[in-house]
Amino acid sequence: MDFKEYLKQQKQLVDNALDKLVPAANKPPARLNQAIRHSLIDGGKRLRPILVLAAAQAVGGKPEPLLPFACALECIHTYSLIHDDLPAMDNDDVRRGRPTCHKQFDEATAILAGDGLLTLAFELAARPIQDVPAQDSLAMVVQLSQDAGIHGMVGGQMMDMEAEDREVELAELQYIHIHKTGALIRSSCMAGACLGGGDKSQIKLIKRYGEAIGLAFQITDDILDIVGDSELMGKTIGKDQQQAKATYPALMGLGQARDEADNLVNEALSCLQGFSADAEPLRALARYITDRTH
Amino acid sequence: MDFKEYLKQQKQLVDNALDKLVPAANKPPARLNQAIRHSLIDGGKRLRPILVLAAAQAVGGKPEPLLPFACALECIHTYSLIHDDLPAMDNDDVRRGRPTCHKQFDEATAILAGDGLLTLAFELAARPIQDVPAQDSLAMVVQLSQDAGIHGMVGGQMMDMEAEDREVELAELQYIHIHKTGALIRSSCMAGACLGGGDKSQIKLIKRYGEAIGLAFQITDDILDIVGDSELMGKTIGKDQQQAKATYPALMGLGQARDEADNLVNEALSCLQGFSADAEPLRALARYITDRTH
Repeated sequence: MDFKEYLKQQKQLVDNALDKLVPAANKPPARLNQAIRHSLIDGGKRLRPILVLAAAQAVGGKPEPLLPFACALECIHTYSLIHDDLPAMDNDDVRRGRPTCHKQFDEATAILAGDGLLTLAFELAARPIQDVPAQDSLAMVVQLSQDAGIHGMVGGQMMDMEAEDREVELAELQYIHIHKTGALIRSSCMAGACLGGGDKSQIKLIKRYGEAIGLAFQITDDILDIVGDSELMGKTIGKDQQQAKATYPALMGLGQARDEADNLVNEALSCLQGFSADAEPLRALARYITDRTH
Repeated sequence: MDFKEYLKQQKQLVDNALDKLVPAANKPPARLNQAIRHSLIDGGKRLRPILVLAAAQAVGGKPEPLLPFACALECIHTYSLIHDDLPAMDNDDVRRGRPTCHKQFDEATAILAGDGLLTLAFELAARPIQDVPAQDSLAMVVQLSQDAGIHGMVGGQMMDMEAEDREVELAELQYIHIHKTGALIRSSCMAGACLGGGDKSQIKLIKRYGEAIGLAFQITDDILDIVGDSELMGKTIGKDQQQAKATYPALMGLGQARDEADNLVNEALSCLQGFSADAEPLRALARYITDRTH
């Protein structure tokens, strides 16, 4: 398969769906909708929604009916960026190559834009899906809220904030990563596998796949903060080092961090061994995560 | 019925359920859970969850199985208070008789506590309910996210912020109130009626009941900001006038604002005319809303 072309097509699919599912910028409350669109539209790799679609395909399901649920994942990811960028949190000025939401608008608008996106996410996730039993949808809404919430992403961000300005060991760093980034990536994969009609054993394997690439993704992000290109990344680079933040490369060295990410990708690929050629996009996505650093 | 005793019992029921459903203060992430509990536990009248339970009872349903959904409403209400109190928003120091979340903890923790509560709300709302079809639960999650989101509460708060420091006419004020407070109160009533097993016509009437008491509630809050007791209310009083904020009493005078609230309560009561004695708590709740100002 032509993975570059696949990524481009899937991103287009997600971008079109987001544009339709998110209120128009000229509709009231206009300033809120503009702020939401500023942060959400045309930005980012759309990794999480693409994982939903690819996981559904891997179990032989149709990806298109899952587009609203896939977009919910992007809404949650984007809200978390808007809130994390706030002055009281990471205080970032640039995101996805543009001014952050509170820089372009103001803090109150950015807080509300995040709140609006998070709430919209659950509206999209709870929409009935053709040929999917309502109890499966309901179960995936519960799963999504757990992975995005106190025991997932929000909790991870809290632990990350608390770990600032003190020594952090590898076990704690891994704990933070698994919650802050890993939970939502795992959730994307599981939702795709479940709502795509996968059986229990397939869902379990794809869950493990998601956990492995979730951690690999965050290690890679740490690495890119050192070796990456600020313009290509669309965000401030070198901030971790400036702030003496605990990262995988800081704790184990750049080489070993790369090895760790590669091992996790191999583990993810091994989860997909019993899957057909339908899982090819999911396999390519796993490789793509660490390729970004080589 | 002894309404005072009813309120006390229902509040106790909701408080016990919240205590069970929200993570313990000593569980990680401890600071986040402490902040959530600081704002959520033992505070407030629990009006929204009690409306869920009373609406279910009004259609002959059992209220207890709806407790997690009812608690979801209180989580959403509390998250909105935490975020609205932030320095970038209303900048309030006191809420429910205690320091606001960001005063007791810090801004970052308050933002995350709000995010965590909003996310938890959808986990609770999407829990399977005994004897309730999964598609009804799913529909009520969609309804709740619409009423809490861009076209409901979050949008209303945005419009409220935008209306500061300029002249606001009655029509716009009503629009803000209907979205900022009304939508979630209506949602509580509708969810109770639907998940309690009400038929279409009952749900429609209780929806209209909810719209009427929602607006009456906000008008009453405006009135209480003038005539209320800061200690009894547990929050800063007289702020609207200080900030020259548009309110019902400011725009139409105290007497006419009281009449308007009374009319709305009568309209709400007329919606319940065809209901049995099971709707008595819902009737008493409507009267209670304006009684607070007399």
